[in-house]
Amino acid sequence: MTVSKTLIDDTVERSALTLGMVGGGHGSFFGPVHRAAMRLSGRWRVAAGAFSSDRDRSIASGRALGVAPDRIYGSGEELADREAARPDRIDAAVVVTPNSSHFEACRALLRRRIPTICDKPMTADLVEANALVDAVASARTPFAVTYTYAGYPMVRQARELVRSGALGPIRLVHVEYLQEWLAEPVEKQGNNQAAWRLDPKRAGLSGALGDIGTHAFQLVEYVTGMEVTEVAGELHRIVEGRQLDDNGFVRMRLANGANGLLWASQVASGVDNALRVRVFGQKGNLDWRQEEPNTLSLAISGEPVATLVRAKPYLSVPSRAAAWLPAGAPDGYLEALAAIYSRIADAVAAGPGYDASREPGFPTIRDGWRGMAFVDAAVRSSRQSGEWIRVPAWGRSDLA
Amino acid sequence: MTVSKTLIDDTVERSALTLGMVGGGHGSFFGPVHRAAMRLSGRWRVAAGAFSSDRDRSIASGRALGVAPDRIYGSGEELADREAARPDRIDAAVVVTPNSSHFEACRALLRRRIPTICDKPMTADLVEANALVDAVASARTPFAVTYTYAGYPMVRQARELVRSGALGPIRLVHVEYLQEWLAEPVEKQGNNQAAWRLDPKRAGLSGALGDIGTHAFQLVEYVTGMEVTEVAGELHRIVEGRQLDDNGFVRMRLANGANGLLWASQVASGVDNALRVRVFGQKGNLDWRQEEPNTLSLAISGEPVATLVRAKPYLSVPSRAAAWLPAGAPDGYLEALAAIYSRIADAVAAGPGYDASREPGFPTIRDGWRGMAFVDAAVRSSRQSGEWIRVPAWGRSDLA
Amino acid sequence: MTVSKTLIDDTVERSALTLGMVGGGHGSFFGPVHRAAMRLSGRWRVAAGAFSSDRDRSIASGRALGVAPDRIYGSGEELADREAARPDRIDAAVVVTPNSSHFEACRALLRRRIPTICDKPMTADLVEANALVDAVASARTPFAVTYTYAGYPMVRQARELVRSGALGPIRLVHVEYLQEWLAEPVEKQGNNQAAWRLDPKRAGLSGALGDIGTHAFQLVEYVTGMEVTEVAGELHRIVEGRQLDDNGFVRMRLANGANGLLWASQVASGVDNALRVRVFGQKGNLDWRQEEPNTLSLAISGEPVATLVRAKPYLSVPSRAAAWLPAGAPDGYLEALAAIYSRIADAVAAGPGYDASREPGFPTIRDGWRGMAFVDAAVRSSRQSGEWIRVPAWGRSDLA
Amino acid sequence: MTVSKTLIDDTVERSALTLGMVGGGHGSFFGPVHRAAMRLSGRWRVAAGAFSSDRDRSIASGRALGVAPDRIYGSGEELADREAARPDRIDAAVVVTPNSSHFEACRALLRRRIPTICDKPMTADLVEANALVDAVASARTPFAVTYTYAGYPMVRQARELVRSGALGPIRLVHVEYLQEWLAEPVEKQGNNQAAWRLDPKRAGLSGALGDIGTHAFQLVEYVTGMEVTEVAGELHRIVEGRQLDDNGFVRMRLANGANGLLWASQVASGVDNALRVRVFGQKGNLDWRQEEPNTLSLAISGEPVATLVRAKPYLSVPSRAAAWLPAGAPDGYLEALAAIYSRIADAVAAGPGYDASREPGFPTIRDGWRGMAFVDAAVRSSRQSGEWIRVPAWGRSDLA
Repeated sequence: MTVSKTLIDDTVERSALTLGMVGGGHGSFFGPVHRAAMRLSGRWRVAAGAFSSDRDRSIASGRALGVAPDRIYGSGEELADREAARPDRIDAAVVVTPNSSHFEACRALLRRRIPTICDKPMTADLVEANALVDAVASARTPFAVTYTYAGYPMVRQARELVRSGALGPIRLVHVEYLQEWLAEPVEKQGNNQAAWRLDPKRAGLSGALGDIGTHAFQLVEYVTGMEVTEVAGELHRIVEGRQLDDNGFVRMRLANGANGLLWASQVASGVDNALRVRVFGQKGNLDWRQEEPNTLSLAISGEPVATLVRAKPYLSVPSRAAAWLPAGAPDGYLEALAAIYSRIADAVAAGPGYDASREPGFPTIRDGWRGMAFVDAAVRSSRQSGEWIRVPAWGRSDLA
Repeated sequence: MTVSKTLIDDTVERSALTLGMVGGGHGSFFGPVHRAAMRLSGRWRVAAGAFSSDRDRSIASGRALGVAPDRIYGSGEELADREAARPDRIDAAVVVTPNSSHFEACRALLRRRIPTICDKPMTADLVEANALVDAVASARTPFAVTYTYAGYPMVRQARELVRSGALGPIRLVHVEYLQEWLAEPVEKQGNNQAAWRLDPKRAGLSGALGDIGTHAFQLVEYVTGMEVTEVAGELHRIVEGRQLDDNGFVRMRLANGANGLLWASQVASGVDNALRVRVFGQKGNLDWRQEEPNTLSLAISGEPVATLVRAKPYLSVPSRAAAWLPAGAPDGYLEALAAIYSRIADAVAAGPGYDASREPGFPTIRDGWRGMAFVDAAVRSSRQSGEWIRVPAWGRSDLA
Repeated sequence: MTVSKTLIDDTVERSALTLGMVGGGHGSFFGPVHRAAMRLSGRWRVAAGAFSSDRDRSIASGRALGVAPDRIYGSGEELADREAARPDRIDAAVVVTPNSSHFEACRALLRRRIPTICDKPMTADLVEANALVDAVASARTPFAVTYTYAGYPMVRQARELVRSGALGPIRLVHVEYLQEWLAEPVEKQGNNQAAWRLDPKRAGLSGALGDIGTHAFQLVEYVTGMEVTEVAGELHRIVEGRQLDDNGFVRMRLANGANGLLWASQVASGVDNALRVRVFGQKGNLDWRQEEPNTLSLAISGEPVATLVRAKPYLSVPSRAAAWLPAGAPDGYLEALAAIYSRIADAVAAGPGYDASREPGFPTIRDGWRGMAFVDAAVRSSRQSGEWIRVPAWGRSDLA
Repeated sequence: MTVSKTLIDDTVERSALTLGMVGGGHGSFFGPVHRAAMRLSGRWRVAAGAFSSDRDRSIASGRALGVAPDRIYGSGEELADREAARPDRIDAAVVVTPNSSHFEACRALLRRRIPTICDKPMTADLVEANALVDAVASARTPFAVTYTYAGYPMVRQARELVRSGALGPIRLVHVEYLQEWLAEPVEKQGNNQAAWRLDPKRAGLSGALGDIGTHAFQLVEYVTGMEVTEVAGELHRIVEGRQLDDNGFVRMRLANGANGLLWASQVASGVDNALRVRVFGQKGNLDWRQEEPNTLSLAISGEPVATLVRAKPYLSVPSRAAAWLPAGAPDGYLEALAAIYSRIADAVAAGPGYDASREPGFPTIRDGWRGMAFVDAAVRSSRQSGEWIRVPAWGRSDLA
């Protein structure tokens, strides 16, 4: 088992980068998620921020995050202007506000030539998107949109498979992104995440299609390597009284004439968050599901269905380079180990007050000792033709 | 969708903790994995280390990791003694050396009352384990063993289910942990990870059973909440010429008289890393597989089989507290987003040399703009009874 | 384990029924399938037939099937007229010709008040369908269309679940039926099944949509218990040169205003035959896939996902009544046992020429004896504290 | 799509064979299952029987099954003697009584040189099994044991894969057969199937191991093509008060030195009937589960995991020859179609009393007409650029 060196290896010397955040303070859904991903990457440190459009809230969040007081700002524009004037200016900034604020913040950052990372959908409408294209062209600095799914190793493999011609000419594409969280009118029941996403002033010209349909669409173009040239569709407001769509069916035509179907729904009761893309060529199809992201199904006509697994040597270089851990240590391992490290931190931080008798949330000396007692007994049993051997109980007097 | 506050929320002020590492330098498999998990936790910073038993290698690794030169040591004992003497001594230390070195390092740390985290299996044999029990008892400081699987939300749910009586009295347990990486004699072909694990001097009294059987065993006791009282089994050396087991079948008897089977194998060709535990009570069974860690199957006799999903409100508090992201954002999301952040860091770090025309490994302005062009066209199609609407191509003159 | 008495139980006295077949002779795809299903049902015997529009071929097929020579006919009309005149006239007839011949044959049978079973799609177009409605109304005799999927126990359960209100008001329906067998222009390469299905003269007004889209459509109306009131869609001829569609995307509106998507494709490379229906109500969704027909997934928002299994006591009466075997003996068991009975028949039919030394295709005395030798050894081992016990080899002298 | 000709094709002239049954009358679990499989095979007709050891019950069952009164007997011995004396003697006989009666019946049949089919386990103990081996050798007539799982196409493929060397030398085998139906003491609660299986006088020397462990064992030897040479194990009586085992763990050693584990349980609460076999060679493994019998997983080290599907052209000849229907029409299709034919038979048998207004349990003219109305509307919508087209409702006046 060898670790993919590209992502997990932190024994390569690399300069740490500083980041400014626009949005992402207390109560934000995606702010902590972005910061956790940054920490995992080991490449970024939050050094500045306009964490809320309310200055006091921004300051409170910034302090909790350990940001220096003089680098906590009240708006993206202020952050851009004042950071640009510092000798230790941030290396980049990320914008994770509601959609309708993306444009102004990104434009201000780009004017100052600060590399910019923008959450999706990029803007509230196409007019703003056009203007941002110009702003990026002028700034000549990196600009990224956090379409997270493009970061999955098996999505990258899917793209490489299409590119390689393994499927033959592409004929049909089916993509769906289903969620249930707007199946009831929660926007009227105090759910702020729902409220702004269904408010045209904050979300822009679409609800579900903008929020998650854009992810699905990006996957289609990313995986096929082709542009969609035409769409025909229908957006629905399934829950009464909504101003923006909560469900949409869209037919698509791709650059080579292939036909596609896109279904985005936030009223798909019983489904948490299910994104799936299938691409059919003349020779076969591929199938990827976000709920089991470590595998990719490849069905070539006339052959057994192949299940490709994250990080295996038979994958393409771009796919392998996107994996943190080797095959067999699927995503989740790092989270589990990090959970244990968090609980140990709790115990250590408790200091003298540490109560070893409470269930600590991490394996302790007892678990370590039990493992050795087990191995010891099993080895002895094996040496004695499989006889039963007693495993001493924890804490019994015969231990000493 | 609400985020579980316990793990992902970093807007709570918490003191950062410092850690010393014993082992984990250049070429280590688990060193970078532990550090990635620490970073993700946001609670730890590596501040000292004896990264290798070779002092020069230790220094090189420590420098790459940004550790101050005066806190890079040549052994665990030295680290314990010298850190204990510092006013800014480390808050805790982790030992990730080969098995046979765990004991000395842990004992030295505990003597200095430094909270200690030890990789599994805890020691080379039961004699050492007994001695370490005494050392922990004397030190009165937290001691953890990194049995990672206990950190999975659905493993914690499994434990709660047994505890709740949902399965009735436990009757049968089946656990298996299969890997293929020792199916060929790779220990003779330059694989150091294999070489020390199959060398009694470095691995201790068992190969596969110590390396992964202990994980399986810990799961059994963790999930059932009972001790194994007797074992009967057989260890095999399937690949010729080995001194330690590469496969083992072990029957177990639990404290309440339940019967169990444990199978650990590192010669299970075609399997990367498959850990599965099933517990059968009088009323039904539960089933968890590390390869799909976000779900837990619960089959109560006479009822439909229930699939429990990570982070859902119907789970127990300990299970929910171990989840980083809400249900539907399964493990892997953070890794994918972190991969994107890493690639953005590459681009930003490239500075003026940034070549926007190369495929950057992250979504760019083009992707952001395409998404808005799609939403714009789909909204217009929907308003025009589903007519086909052209999506403008990227880079065409009509964009402006 | 108790057998559902309704289908498998043949110890209830029931009159056997006689059937006439129109179509289904040598070279027919579905003729043998229908006859196998009839035999399995134990209720029908083929007693007459017009097995081909070519009289000689009809006679040859009829003889092979053991039909009396005077009951082999040259057309459906002839069969209807002459059978109607016999005192031992057939109890019913089935029409399994290409689509465009269904109408004439069914009308002739109905005129003679012969209960009629018709393959799907029922007719070549809606004009014929309207006329057949009148003919059935006049005949006052059973008329059936073999939409097979309505016979699956878990499809029946899906219908009952919607009916019970378990999903709440229905909002969204997604159905897809994918096949790959027309991905290449096989209709020009000697594939007769393809040739008639893509020929408007024999298939009627649609290709894929008529052939398999009607199955998908029937499932939607069957499971939801509602009519589709409007459709909007697009049929494609993906493989060049075709006169009829080989792929179609259809949006649907149901009687209660729910929205639906139907995708039928016979060019979905890499997919044999995948039919899946999902129904989303306000409270949750159900999901059934023909490839795993024994289970039905039921996801109610806020609850664990339930997997319902064929033949279990918690299912509705109509669902249980459609199961041949108890839960746990999934479909396939009867086929496997029937395969063994077929091979035994080969051996018995071989008579004196039976060569016991050849691999017979069924388990023999050797297998029976081995099983007893195993049980005997295992029982002895268990009585001797799990010691190893030799299992005697087959054919060794110590056997006697 | 072409049908495998070997099993489904009934247009090949073949002599029908007659069968005598010993056991399998009213109240029998497997009697009707065997007869359904025979009917499906199309090769057998039950012409005689000793359906019960109680002569009156035997007569009642035989009559219901349409057996001529003079061929209904009171015991297997009587059946053997009297059928042997008839000019139209049965072609073969099947014995489906409780285990302890197998031996006498089989021996009587073999003495008369009647080809014999015996349910498993073959006898009550090894002494009887040895004697039966002699009886078969003397009779020189076909003798079969109904180990059904050997009839599955993908089990046959598994055997061929091992034989072909695809897995390399076999090293490890894991087989488990789990059921829950004896998890409670149902043998004391009126369950006759349970009562005789747990009674040493009727079941023989083992309970679960004889009843289902023999299936698992046969699979091991069948798939590997090797004999098990030694076993070591432990049988449990988990439910108190039982005389025979309801659970067993058995280690096995195969002829080539490979190690195996067999687990048979009838107290595995929450599991209906789960049989799974895995074989690991040096190069990779195969995995087959009875619950999804149409696929076989093949994992060769270093390659994507391959899912092989029933009836596909890439399979071996013996595997394809065991499939009734082509790939994509998985097992279950015949049962579903047969269920429909059964309900049609009900309607036809009802004669003039047929009430067309009741839900008939099969698709009717309404379903047929709806399908055509759908196709008609979808074709028109497609011709009109995807406009919405109304689908006429069933029964409305505009139909005529």
